[in-house]
Amino acid sequence: MNFIQQLDASVEKSNSLLCVGLDPELDKLPEHIRNAPQPLYAFNSAIIDATHDIVSSYKPNSAFYEAQGADGIAQLKSTMEYVGKKYPEIPVILDAKRADIGNTNRMYAKFAFDYLGADAITLHPYVGKEGLEVFLSYKDKGCIILCRTSNPGAGELQDVLVNGKKFYLHVAELVSKRWNEQGNCLLVVGATYPSELREIRVLVGDSMTLLVPGIGAQGGSVEESIRAGLNSKKTGMIVSTSRVVLYASSGRDFAERAREKAAKLRDEINKYR
Amino acid sequence: MNFIQQLDASVEKSNSLLCVGLDPELDKLPEHIRNAPQPLYAFNSAIIDATHDIVSSYKPNSAFYEAQGADGIAQLKSTMEYVGKKYPEIPVILDAKRADIGNTNRMYAKFAFDYLGADAITLHPYVGKEGLEVFLSYKDKGCIILCRTSNPGAGELQDVLVNGKKFYLHVAELVSKRWNEQGNCLLVVGATYPSELREIRVLVGDSMTLLVPGIGAQGGSVEESIRAGLNSKKTGMIVSTSRVVLYASSGRDFAERAREKAAKLRDEINKYR
Repeated sequence: MNFIQQLDASVEKSNSLLCVGLDPELDKLPEHIRNAPQPLYAFNSAIIDATHDIVSSYKPNSAFYEAQGADGIAQLKSTMEYVGKKYPEIPVILDAKRADIGNTNRMYAKFAFDYLGADAITLHPYVGKEGLEVFLSYKDKGCIILCRTSNPGAGELQDVLVNGKKFYLHVAELVSKRWNEQGNCLLVVGATYPSELREIRVLVGDSMTLLVPGIGAQGGSVEESIRAGLNSKKTGMIVSTSRVVLYASSGRDFAERAREKAAKLRDEINKYR
Repeated sequence: MNFIQQLDASVEKSNSLLCVGLDPELDKLPEHIRNAPQPLYAFNSAIIDATHDIVSSYKPNSAFYEAQGADGIAQLKSTMEYVGKKYPEIPVILDAKRADIGNTNRMYAKFAFDYLGADAITLHPYVGKEGLEVFLSYKDKGCIILCRTSNPGAGELQDVLVNGKKFYLHVAELVSKRWNEQGNCLLVVGATYPSELREIRVLVGDSMTLLVPGIGAQGGSVEESIRAGLNSKKTGMIVSTSRVVLYASSGRDFAERAREKAAKLRDEINKYR
């Protein structure tokens, strides 16, 4: 089963497009967790247990573990193994935004797929298809290419015109028409840019799944994003959020409150499907 | 002292533009090292001791350590601490090619600068200046932005025309005129593209230092790169190489042979300065 098939099955089973970003910041964790051994892992496993039946996927961002050094990386691995063993049907996306030349990408792929066991990875497009070939050749793994990022200043480079067309659309076109030979490419498009999301959906058609971060703390509207990003089968989106779910409460009830928030988001998303 | 000042002092002291990429692959290490504890660190420290007086800087690429998981990250930290304690005058560049949105970049900066103690980091440009502001605001650290990568397929996105000008030149112009407010930006330009290197040098003038990977295993010509990339003071370049130095020998004499190879490259570079 490849990543897209696994994701589609998980969306159907959970009736959810929601992806929870597992981006734990030590300072923001409930006090009793912050002072426990392996706090990132302890926090994540509680969040996962509380939300596993209402999410389509999880997305740990590597940066939050790297910030804690080698010990953080070990906790990232424990987190991924926890999902893999307890909820093997749920795909896990490593949000790492990597991309180097080919020889080096072999090493990043080893980290993501062999060491961590990720089902997909996020990638920068700048080095081109040839540069990313190492990742693309893992046909069962998802290659999620940055197209339109969710940050306020995304347009500085992504909106420049190439033959009268904005650069992010050029990237979307290349990925959907040339890079996706194995059918394992997806695109990242921020929920903070619903009209760009709509343009990209029109351009790539039904065939491509979009990872849409930016609802919640970043302010993207659920209604606008969902209406703009769905394919004609009312799916084809991974709607990701992190802080509003993870930090719904800073007390001992954090996991319970996280579930409530995630369920509410899932239902809100489904209202517009 | 900021990164550029530290680098310039190191170039002058070592009379060298050479940067050794510390990218150890377990399979390629000499057998007696491969089977030792902490093999990446053991290898690196021997290479560093053998080359410290003939290089301007070191550049470990994070991918090669990530491939070994948490244990690899610990060895990356040990490597950086080794340089920092024994040869504090030599700057160390973390080649990580990171870039996410601002909230996440805080975590990557924590990894690179606080945990590892890197003096500079390589970054993707795609998220724009606002996205990279967290890194740019570390005024004493170098922010080395990908402009023209060294891989054969670099042109697919980097050569598209923006107002009649190639995209990598647009990036070079933005970085040199708008992103470099703290004077801490550099650009990555592959030695495999000497005519692009020359264009970029003309565009950015004397003010900007260029990190030039791609001589050695990737086939970039030393003569062409040096003639194309120097500023008018015959400096302003970090010429980086990895495999040809690291694997000059697979025997017990690897460090000695690495020194010979590095010395030869330094001298060849200096011949064209």
